[in-house]
Amino acid sequence: MSLLDTIHSPADLKKLDRSDLPRLASEIRARIIDVTSRNGGHLASSLGAVELTLAIHYVFDTPQDKLIWDVGHQSYAHKLITGRSQAFDTLRKPGGISGFPRIGESPFDAFSTGHSSTSISAGLGMAHGKKLAGDSHKVVAVIGDGSMTAGLAYEGLNHAGDSRGNLLVILNDNDMSISPNVGALSSFLSRTFSARYLQDLRAEFGRFLKSLPKIGDDVYQLAKRSEESFKAFVTPGMLFEAFNFDYFGPINGHRLNHLIDILQNIRELKEPVLLHVTTKKGMGYPPAEKNPTFFHGVPPFDIRSGEKIPPPPAPPSYTEIFGRTLCHMAEKNEKILAVTAAMPEGTGLSPFAEKFKDRFFDVGIAEQHAVTFAAGMSTEGFRPVVAIYSTFLQRAYDQLLHDVCLDGHPVIFAIDRGGFVGDDGPTHHGLFDLAFLRTLPGMTIMAPRDEAQLAAMMKTAESHSGPSAIRYPRGAGTGVNVDINCPALSMGKGEILRKGRNLTLLALGRPVYEALRAAEILAEQGIDAQVVDARFLKPLDTSLLREIGMEGKPVITLEEGILTGGFGSAVLEFYGDEGISCPLRRLGVPDRFMSHGNPDDLRKACGLDAQSIAETAQMLMEKAAS
Amino acid sequence: MSLLDTIHSPADLKKLDRSDLPRLASEIRARIIDVTSRNGGHLASSLGAVELTLAIHYVFDTPQDKLIWDVGHQSYAHKLITGRSQAFDTLRKPGGISGFPRIGESPFDAFSTGHSSTSISAGLGMAHGKKLAGDSHKVVAVIGDGSMTAGLAYEGLNHAGDSRGNLLVILNDNDMSISPNVGALSSFLSRTFSARYLQDLRAEFGRFLKSLPKIGDDVYQLAKRSEESFKAFVTPGMLFEAFNFDYFGPINGHRLNHLIDILQNIRELKEPVLLHVTTKKGMGYPPAEKNPTFFHGVPPFDIRSGEKIPPPPAPPSYTEIFGRTLCHMAEKNEKILAVTAAMPEGTGLSPFAEKFKDRFFDVGIAEQHAVTFAAGMSTEGFRPVVAIYSTFLQRAYDQLLHDVCLDGHPVIFAIDRGGFVGDDGPTHHGLFDLAFLRTLPGMTIMAPRDEAQLAAMMKTAESHSGPSAIRYPRGAGTGVNVDINCPALSMGKGEILRKGRNLTLLALGRPVYEALRAAEILAEQGIDAQVVDARFLKPLDTSLLREIGMEGKPVITLEEGILTGGFGSAVLEFYGDEGISCPLRRLGVPDRFMSHGNPDDLRKACGLDAQSIAETAQMLMEKAAS
Repeated sequence: MSLLDTIHSPADLKKLDRSDLPRLASEIRARIIDVTSRNGGHLASSLGAVELTLAIHYVFDTPQDKLIWDVGHQSYAHKLITGRSQAFDTLRKPGGISGFPRIGESPFDAFSTGHSSTSISAGLGMAHGKKLAGDSHKVVAVIGDGSMTAGLAYEGLNHAGDSRGNLLVILNDNDMSISPNVGALSSFLSRTFSARYLQDLRAEFGRFLKSLPKIGDDVYQLAKRSEESFKAFVTPGMLFEAFNFDYFGPINGHRLNHLIDILQNIRELKEPVLLHVTTKKGMGYPPAEKNPTFFHGVPPFDIRSGEKIPPPPAPPSYTEIFGRTLCHMAEKNEKILAVTAAMPEGTGLSPFAEKFKDRFFDVGIAEQHAVTFAAGMSTEGFRPVVAIYSTFLQRAYDQLLHDVCLDGHPVIFAIDRGGFVGDDGPTHHGLFDLAFLRTLPGMTIMAPRDEAQLAAMMKTAESHSGPSAIRYPRGAGTGVNVDINCPALSMGKGEILRKGRNLTLLALGRPVYEALRAAEILAEQGIDAQVVDARFLKPLDTSLLREIGMEGKPVITLEEGILTGGFGSAVLEFYGDEGISCPLRRLGVPDRFMSHGNPDDLRKACGLDAQSIAETAQMLMEKAAS
Repeated sequence: MSLLDTIHSPADLKKLDRSDLPRLASEIRARIIDVTSRNGGHLASSLGAVELTLAIHYVFDTPQDKLIWDVGHQSYAHKLITGRSQAFDTLRKPGGISGFPRIGESPFDAFSTGHSSTSISAGLGMAHGKKLAGDSHKVVAVIGDGSMTAGLAYEGLNHAGDSRGNLLVILNDNDMSISPNVGALSSFLSRTFSARYLQDLRAEFGRFLKSLPKIGDDVYQLAKRSEESFKAFVTPGMLFEAFNFDYFGPINGHRLNHLIDILQNIRELKEPVLLHVTTKKGMGYPPAEKNPTFFHGVPPFDIRSGEKIPPPPAPPSYTEIFGRTLCHMAEKNEKILAVTAAMPEGTGLSPFAEKFKDRFFDVGIAEQHAVTFAAGMSTEGFRPVVAIYSTFLQRAYDQLLHDVCLDGHPVIFAIDRGGFVGDDGPTHHGLFDLAFLRTLPGMTIMAPRDEAQLAAMMKTAESHSGPSAIRYPRGAGTGVNVDINCPALSMGKGEILRKGRNLTLLALGRPVYEALRAAEILAEQGIDAQVVDARFLKPLDTSLLREIGMEGKPVITLEEGILTGGFGSAVLEFYGDEGISCPLRRLGVPDRFMSHGNPDDLRKACGLDAQSIAETAQMLMEKAAS
């Protein structure tokens, strides 16, 4: 029987002798590698945090002591020892456990995470709550150095230090976020920092020594020792001390005994404490140690070779087509720049970064800054393209509004992972973007039905003088031929893809193809459906919409986004304003959080697959006839 | 003739002898005091930045060198010497110049501001743009110490230091934001900081000195001097050096000669530089020096006494009623906490802060953190109330979605300044909240028609187990009697205020009273209008809506917010989903940015005044009849 099988909760863990823990750590690693090799998942971060996880649960009394995993990429070991070892096979599977901490999943998950840098703020809130309630339990927030680049983390640190919350922040420093880190803080943490002040002080110290009466070599030796202590002085500790935190570290995050000792010591402190732990991303699995970026969020792979299990052949992804098209455009237009918030690979910008080093900007996990920074560049006549996941753009709503749209700066937003993303679930689906982007005055919003149209929309954005957003799905394209030299689309013009006299399927983005398939199903039933690709959410193709609506025949709008305030609502608003009355049914994502799952299943659950669309159309036809 | 009259642009300023500048500074102060005493405005910050403004324009070649005023509260002197001296009388007046920098207003306004902490990001974007374009002009961002608490500023610093942008950041440190500053960084800047490391180092230094052979008092003197240099060492400089900035300062921001000298020296540096300038908020006007919080954003006042010119008597403001009701609730419910992001006075929380010191949290300008921090407190069984201006809540869209709504944490959002705010203009109107809040699954959204209902809605939020938002206007209430012991409203229930058989005016929040007045106007014309207070934007009162819609009579929805995805759209969506068809007209704010101006004029421009509503109703009746 394995040790892991005996651990049903951290209470069982506490019964183990310290000397058993390394064996348990090995078993946990093996289990994580095994399951992620089949299910995919966030492997490298979780492998790096195994000892840290064991040490925390060994020392603290979770769940009374609260433990928050920032982002949650590193929480697999935590899941395994908090009663989810049996269920761990279902990780990220439909109906299975989440890849992230979820309050609803376990009392040991003190806060649901997914987006980065929330843990200090949430933890500080808990710490103040406990203080008010007279509860002396501890709050522990584990945050990676990558997450430290986001402003929210800084806001939390600043308030924690000031308000003296009883909070332990463990900085899990693996010198990476998803890709290698950027940012001044990062180099600071990597201790490559050499401050001007340090030099000045050294010089001053040298003068001081010179001014002393000659007393032999001893002074020189002492001075040297002191210089080293100055170096130690100018460490990350300094920064966190500046925030009124007590700083400890850096310590090796894989030395269990040492970790446990220090946690036992500092758990008694009742003030903001930062423990700096250095870990290795991918620790214990050589392929992941070698290539932690690939093994950050990994698809199924072969354990022995560490090679990705070749997925069924698929057309190039939207991401890839975006990257390729952008390079092509940038060759001809030197004003085009690219901005990413710590996602060069994920957003497809790696080839651009390589080809146009000077025109590529990775700002770290800092979406707010990415947007305002791009606005600044655009005032100098450049055309920055901010490539970002839909879900992370939520972080920059005010910057879109206040810094880009207010003056109509021509920034281009390439919004990847729009719609369902699948395994990462509710924190990562890109379902809100259409609705929140639509509130922005002057923002042009497009969604391509396929990767060829993505290229055309990029040209459209380039030729437009105001801000624009192109929102496209995760994963493989449709396989259509992509003409990288395609012209721009006519601004605000939709396209009739299939003529039909009985009703209109009016779709935006990915669901256009489902509409076409639905039309075929309907044709078999004698219903002649018109299929229209709206292409633009803003501005709407009002003349086309008017034409469609004036016929008075049923219209079904289709979008892979929330129905509240989305594309269908835009059409409703237009018809309402125009006094056009036609039976209209909006299909999209309902007003609740959607769990993780297979995107096709999720679409089906929302009635967005061809078969469901056809059924809705039939129903609507019957109703109209009655 | 005054000196100021001869300054039509910074070129004229450069012609002056340095010795003339203090006189010019005095004239500028007098002019600022004079105009704001009549128009109201951001007096204290602008008075504090007069010398800094002159020094910058004296040394740099604006507008080729770009100058960004963070927030923009301090930009009046800048406006006066960049060609807007004549127009300055129209400051914040309808059709007049803006109280903030506006790209569209002058080429000298390099970036439009209003919300805090954008200047480093925008400036860094410009600096990189200039570098790519081979343009050696400088970019200067002036940012207050208050703005430094926002995460966006930190994200900008972090990227600037890393990417070595040719950017000069001038930290205008007056030890205040609007109210006195909070946050660990603030105490750091105030030099009250005493790090453990500093103490350790001192101890070590002491040991070092002790270890030296006895050589008399000289050593002690030297040691003392060195200890002082250590103190200097642990200054703000350290922090900014950590971000790879070259740090200069702190220098007195009112000594013109010194400022000019140092700016001339550092303008040649081609890397990130931070100049730390200390200024006095309200400088040169004793009442403002004494009470900079009141004179931050000030209504018209008597110059001699510094007393507010008594405004016409008005009922207590919504803000005041909110504060009073919250105190009342907190007395009975010890779980109630209050959170503000640097706005204790503006949000009406000052009395709460005084009465319930331990339950009050001012987190600084850090809206993202405020929201996630509140979510954390709610997980400990508390009921945090985040009091925030509508426009600033835009900063925390993702935190609302990801940290509050995903798990349905029962945080209460008291959203002040919803709707038109008047003089502060497009960056400050609270017009987007209804639309963006509505996209949040599980968020209850209310808007009171008057201050009595505000109190009732606060009780409603308290009795509700999920997240809720109450959105209310700036300024005076309607004068109705407020029963602080009122009961909660029925969740999601609207209220018919006036029966009528011809059409329905369906209003949310403040426009309810306009609807009632419109009904009176209509009655005179023989039209019998029903007036309904929706009260809830989410959940909608579906049974009431159904009843209204099924009658098939015209419906006009009224909201003081953008029409894109707002309240009217919610009603449209419901009728669409239910297949209910009735002539519906949505009145609200169109899809563009609204300038500053008198709120009543702005409402009229949107057709939201009683007369316009009546006219729309008439038109709709005629159309329905035809």
